[in-house]
Amino acid sequence: MVCSTRWPRLCVNNAMAGELDFIARLRALARHPAARGLNDDCAVLPLGTGTGSETLILTHDAMAQGVHYLPTQDMADVAWKLVASNLSDLAAKGAQPLGVLLGYSLGGDDTRFLEGLAQVLDHYDTPLLGGDTIRVDGPLSFGLTAVGRATHLPVPSRSGARPGDAIWITGGVGAAMMGFEALQAGHDDPALTVAFRRPEALVAEGQSLAPLVTAMMDVSDGVLLDAWRMGTASGVTMAIDSAAVPLRAPEERRRDALSWGEDYQLLFTAPAGCLLPVEATRIGEVRTKGDAPLLLDGVTMRESDHLGWHHKG
Amino acid sequence: MVCSTRWPRLCVNNAMAGELDFIARLRALARHPAARGLNDDCAVLPLGTGTGSETLILTHDAMAQGVHYLPTQDMADVAWKLVASNLSDLAAKGAQPLGVLLGYSLGGDDTRFLEGLAQVLDHYDTPLLGGDTIRVDGPLSFGLTAVGRATHLPVPSRSGARPGDAIWITGGVGAAMMGFEALQAGHDDPALTVAFRRPEALVAEGQSLAPLVTAMMDVSDGVLLDAWRMGTASGVTMAIDSAAVPLRAPEERRRDALSWGEDYQLLFTAPAGCLLPVEATRIGEVRTKGDAPLLLDGVTMRESDHLGWHHKG
Repeated sequence: MVCSTRWPRLCVNNAMAGELDFIARLRALARHPAARGLNDDCAVLPLGTGTGSETLILTHDAMAQGVHYLPTQDMADVAWKLVASNLSDLAAKGAQPLGVLLGYSLGGDDTRFLEGLAQVLDHYDTPLLGGDTIRVDGPLSFGLTAVGRATHLPVPSRSGARPGDAIWITGGVGAAMMGFEALQAGHDDPALTVAFRRPEALVAEGQSLAPLVTAMMDVSDGVLLDAWRMGTASGVTMAIDSAAVPLRAPEERRRDALSWGEDYQLLFTAPAGCLLPVEATRIGEVRTKGDAPLLLDGVTMRESDHLGWHHKG
Repeated sequence: MVCSTRWPRLCVNNAMAGELDFIARLRALARHPAARGLNDDCAVLPLGTGTGSETLILTHDAMAQGVHYLPTQDMADVAWKLVASNLSDLAAKGAQPLGVLLGYSLGGDDTRFLEGLAQVLDHYDTPLLGGDTIRVDGPLSFGLTAVGRATHLPVPSRSGARPGDAIWITGGVGAAMMGFEALQAGHDDPALTVAFRRPEALVAEGQSLAPLVTAMMDVSDGVLLDAWRMGTASGVTMAIDSAAVPLRAPEERRRDALSWGEDYQLLFTAPAGCLLPVEATRIGEVRTKGDAPLLLDGVTMRESDHLGWHHKG
């Protein structure tokens, strides 16, 4: 199994031991508080002092052929997803995007990539600031750094969920899974595949929610795995009612959809009764720490349960 | 020929037409003033307002196996060079490094890479802020984004050289070339190869020079090619006396050393008679725009002359 791990998105179930070990050793290098111990979606770096000061939000994500996208996919969609997945990390911090830097491998359909890049940057009104171009023999890979500024302090983290909070998600899950499967089966109906090909980063929603949430993250690796991580970071147990999670897939695929990623919804906790500025569904409640960080329909989850999706290649 | 192009480090001599065309089309997307039209080493992004405001300096550079380093090289040196080459771009802006984000391909000697990464981050007192890890089949490649803050406004650019200015370089050229050739020939004497393996980013020198220079850049692709670029960006002719350039290679290799890169010295222009805070050598003078941006020993250079080095793989 090929695996990609955005730190600290540890491949809890499937990562090779070497990769977990590598990331553990990287953590030892990331001692600066801005790195948040590599335990969050983004780095959070205060800059300047006084009234004009800002807090910088930084993230870097890569996509590789055969790992994050099918070799047959339109490169315009690859460009879109590369940008949207990074902006989704900024969204989880309530950040306003300032720009992106691109690490680009030449040799695919460069023209289509550029077309998709232009579309996604225009869609999010985010400038291309710089980058680098290389040409290598072998599968293509692309890296993107997204830079944003915090719109609310403190910047939401994964670690602030408190017992008694309600657990919310902004939309349904499963659409990306259905899109991926349609694409893999050779369906080219855009309506079936769009959720996988061109996900939306919930930038405006993240900014609206930032002042209200106790913890927030984007769901890129599966709502169960991401809830597990939030529970771990917060030192609580996330009790989720699987039937409450809005589904954008057939009912018989519910369990699959809960452990599939790339829907890029926002998962967050907020005090029960909190009036929300965006549409969201309550899917559970935060409890004091029990046997594990995640309780699904009253059953304690284990790391060995299939909780998340790790870029099936 | 394998080619890597950090925008706007156009491979003037050897880039494939498709790559030049790709970069030209990228420029059309980089309309934000912070991107400097992809015509500089870094993006320059003012952030915040008032007394606490800062100017962010951002750069992203990649290194690929067989393109930027020999497959037999120690991965600790690869990590060092990846960070140092990016910090050198910050140095050319007089920036203070704030941190780096790493795009890492697993599968090489990850342990040695981590050791080198720890050493170089410690050496430059620069934190690892985040990043992403992927595993692909094929040659390894690594991307790094370096983030810094300007220490002086206006931030030095390539475009400020004025007729009458003197042209300076901080040190000698040719050491990286000699080191590369020694490494390629199988010599493992560290003293011979260190300049290629572990270049120094002149971060402190760049900060000292920033208030004084009219234009500045780091010499990563050959002093002649980089002077050509500075001349082009500034709309002037750079008249360089080749004999004046300090050489760290045998005299018979002088012309090669002038068109070889990776010494990471700072090339800058300043008013003649300016008192410099760092050691540097005067290698020529800026003239009003003539037939070409570069005059070498009185001879007009052409784009077809071999002026720079493009990552021989």
